[in-house]
Amino acid sequence: MPQPKHARESMTVMTEMVLPNDTNTLNNLMGGRLLHFMDIAAAIAAQKHSNRIVVTASVDNVSFAEPIRLGNIVTMKAQVTRAFSSSMEVFIEVWAEDIPAGIRVSTNSAFYTFVAVDQSGRPIEVPAIIAETDAEKERYESALRRRQLRLVLAGRMNPQDATELREFLKVE
Amino acid sequence: MPQPKHARESMTVMTEMVLPNDTNTLNNLMGGRLLHFMDIAAAIAAQKHSNRIVVTASVDNVSFAEPIRLGNIVTMKAQVTRAFSSSMEVFIEVWAEDIPAGIRVSTNSAFYTFVAVDQSGRPIEVPAIIAETDAEKERYESALRRRQLRLVLAGRMNPQDATELREFLKVE
Amino acid sequence: MPQPKHARESMTVMTEMVLPNDTNTLNNLMGGRLLHFMDIAAAIAAQKHSNRIVVTASVDNVSFAEPIRLGNIVTMKAQVTRAFSSSMEVFIEVWAEDIPAGIRVSTNSAFYTFVAVDQSGRPIEVPAIIAETDAEKERYESALRRRQLRLVLAGRMNPQDATELREFLKVE
Amino acid sequence: MPQPKHARESMTVMTEMVLPNDTNTLNNLMGGRLLHFMDIAAAIAAQKHSNRIVVTASVDNVSFAEPIRLGNIVTMKAQVTRAFSSSMEVFIEVWAEDIPAGIRVSTNSAFYTFVAVDQSGRPIEVPAIIAETDAEKERYESALRRRQLRLVLAGRMNPQDATELREFLKVE
Amino acid sequence: MPQPKHARESMTVMTEMVLPNDTNTLNNLMGGRLLHFMDIAAAIAAQKHSNRIVVTASVDNVSFAEPIRLGNIVTMKAQVTRAFSSSMEVFIEVWAEDIPAGIRVSTNSAFYTFVAVDQSGRPIEVPAIIAETDAEKERYESALRRRQLRLVLAGRMNPQDATELREFLKVE
Amino acid sequence: MPQPKHARESMTVMTEMVLPNDTNTLNNLMGGRLLHFMDIAAAIAAQKHSNRIVVTASVDNVSFAEPIRLGNIVTMKAQVTRAFSSSMEVFIEVWAEDIPAGIRVSTNSAFYTFVAVDQSGRPIEVPAIIAETDAEKERYESALRRRQLRLVLAGRMNPQDATELREFLKVE
Repeated sequence: MPQPKHARESMTVMTEMVLPNDTNTLNNLMGGRLLHFMDIAAAIAAQKHSNRIVVTASVDNVSFAEPIRLGNIVTMKAQVTRAFSSSMEVFIEVWAEDIPAGIRVSTNSAFYTFVAVDQSGRPIEVPAIIAETDAEKERYESALRRRQLRLVLAGRMNPQDATELREFLKVE
Repeated sequence: MPQPKHARESMTVMTEMVLPNDTNTLNNLMGGRLLHFMDIAAAIAAQKHSNRIVVTASVDNVSFAEPIRLGNIVTMKAQVTRAFSSSMEVFIEVWAEDIPAGIRVSTNSAFYTFVAVDQSGRPIEVPAIIAETDAEKERYESALRRRQLRLVLAGRMNPQDATELREFLKVE
Repeated sequence: MPQPKHARESMTVMTEMVLPNDTNTLNNLMGGRLLHFMDIAAAIAAQKHSNRIVVTASVDNVSFAEPIRLGNIVTMKAQVTRAFSSSMEVFIEVWAEDIPAGIRVSTNSAFYTFVAVDQSGRPIEVPAIIAETDAEKERYESALRRRQLRLVLAGRMNPQDATELREFLKVE
Repeated sequence: MPQPKHARESMTVMTEMVLPNDTNTLNNLMGGRLLHFMDIAAAIAAQKHSNRIVVTASVDNVSFAEPIRLGNIVTMKAQVTRAFSSSMEVFIEVWAEDIPAGIRVSTNSAFYTFVAVDQSGRPIEVPAIIAETDAEKERYESALRRRQLRLVLAGRMNPQDATELREFLKVE
Repeated sequence: MPQPKHARESMTVMTEMVLPNDTNTLNNLMGGRLLHFMDIAAAIAAQKHSNRIVVTASVDNVSFAEPIRLGNIVTMKAQVTRAFSSSMEVFIEVWAEDIPAGIRVSTNSAFYTFVAVDQSGRPIEVPAIIAETDAEKERYESALRRRQLRLVLAGRMNPQDATELREFLKVE
Repeated sequence: MPQPKHARESMTVMTEMVLPNDTNTLNNLMGGRLLHFMDIAAAIAAQKHSNRIVVTASVDNVSFAEPIRLGNIVTMKAQVTRAFSSSMEVFIEVWAEDIPAGIRVSTNSAFYTFVAVDQSGRPIEVPAIIAETDAEKERYESALRRRQLRLVLAGRMNPQDATELREFLKVE
């Protein structure tokens, strides 16, 4: 069993400039292209934590509230929140900047999960996560109920058994 | 208010060949690239239903169970399940084929939502959906609880008010 | 010798959204990019018929009558018309849609031929085609004179021997 | 009516290195990608002759005899053969080189036609061609029967009227 | 005249995964593709400093000592070193990581210069730089002789007048 | 030791059309993309001279004086100037044309160096260069001081020993 590692060791910053082919006819970044960028940033964070080849296992619900414009700079910060045997949950935050206009907005956040695999594609155990800051601890704790939601949605867990998820949905 | 339209009128089939730049070092299609393909297929279905420019509003949880290989043919079928004022939920199913090997597997399904907008990007009402087949009716009905889950996850609905979602999860 | 297969079994539908990098300075899809799309759609149809790796052998005369605009949806339908030993002729039809404007036009059709090959690139026999509909039968029959024209243009057949082609050109 | 120009003034040389995304699973350049390269080379030649924006009008039959490998250098030479009012026929020759192996092969040749247009896309007259060398003169002369073949194939000329084409095919 | 800004305010981190199309036949990142990545990272740093659209004015000598492999993660850090009226010099450092192998190497560093321009492309004054750390101060000072070298190489300065450059080359 | 070859034998002409994804928000070709084009053109010239796989070793100072516009045709001419054991210096000149406007400008020139390698990436000797024209002879002679400048900038040569460079800069 590998040594636990700190969440911050997986921290990855990725920057992209929005090019014409990334945009729709309104000159806004297409949602699917952003999902692609986020997947790469998150995969690098998962690689850093596990020192393994990683494959995307799932992406949780992502909402697109703010349009991101042609020529904007997209910055993504990705960090592993928690590991479960061979899988890792990664939290990604996205900002878009129109630098000449001096505007920077938080546009998205998402949770992706990855599985670490060996050269023949078989799952392989990864280090546990040590959460240090309050934000890291909160994401570490809540990772359990997000995992339950994923399993319920995939039909692989009975909602009755999703204790943390049910607890979360009961709270006013 | 525009005339309701049949779900099947939005049916869109999209086919892609997996090229080297779409793959990771194991020669498998990267998850983010598939999310990008699915977004385009789903956006076309939403365009067909609304006859409007559409922008991605959200993607629900997507799981990646099956690796898709370099050279495989990816087929996506997308169809609008239900409309809510200016937004549309689209269901997308994905198959991957290794044609020379005669192998075809169902690899994914997902729900994306889109908002129809006018030329200045303002939301604009879309036709209601008429569900005909049993599968269309089931997806039309369940669209409500998926919408509640999206709103709860986005912090825009109190879990107490997510009646259909709570019913589904059997949360008392 | 492999079992004959129905023409319809090779039916392939491919959809592409016209992106900025596909267009010229008039914002119209470049002809070469469309030829590239059509080649992929047709290759998938030939793969489906032969269950083999296929390589492009030729494309017949293609005319570009209608401009296709940035943001349009291009739909291609490809189907094998006839097989000759290891080669297959594929018929491709192309439509372009400006969905928000409610405009859909037939823009092109073309015949591509492919050769089925094994892993070392050697030609390998493919199933014969069973044509069922009137349109399939017409394309099956006329495949012979198109093949003669290809051979004459490639300098591999004497025009004197191109019986069907000469017959076709004699008719008012 | 613009001044005639020499064929050689439109001469265009274009070189491309075959990259992974241009190749199929046998590591050979895909036919559609080569058609795309050739279209760009030919369009530049037509631009040089006409000093206008040009749009692809047609491509004649192209055969792919020789596989072109990943890492090969593709060289295209394109030159206008003849002008007809607002349209130009361009002849393109293609060579592929595996430079470390010292191998250079002629792989293809093709005729593309282009129409010169103004900023609103309307056809506009182009200079006539002055053919100088024997090869230029031969291509200038034979342009007429290729044009007849294009018109016959497009259903826009009665085969009875395609005098040069019938002469070439020795159809009585 | 805009207010001076700290060098660190322009700090930009960019991460790229080396994909198949970025590599040569040895599966190593092509030099030109790395120069392209570095240009984007440096341009973002110059944008951050000036809050303007920026255009590349020059790149200084760049050496490529270490091969970077397919699948490696390339990290670039870019920061403005000094401003001269409307131009800015940016220092970029590059690291390549093979994360599964636990190998991270410093592969390159370079100086790019950019000019800030307004919407019609005319040069526009940018803030001066405040250097704080020893490394920032050293790069601030040496920017002068690099500028002289650029001007001499461009034939826009007489070597006799390149005081700092001559001083530098005289020192053992 | 391989037989010397003429400089002109490595002559390479490459043509690119500036596409939307190559441009910044002013619709001008990005500097990094041009550096990428130039690297490919120069690498082909070095391949032709050495008949080997080549890897980029360095690029000298490049200045970008003239904006190149979307839709422009970029022509590059590359030729080896001199060989040093396993390395080659290549001179590249760049022109940009707005053909419809009848404008052609010289925009850049640069020196790239490449190392010839065998299949395992080890340096391997290349033919010497025979310079014939006056321009070739001038570039052959001055290659020495450019090489000294590269070595001094890389910290691999003491400025005191850079005789030709110091002579050129008239450093006593």
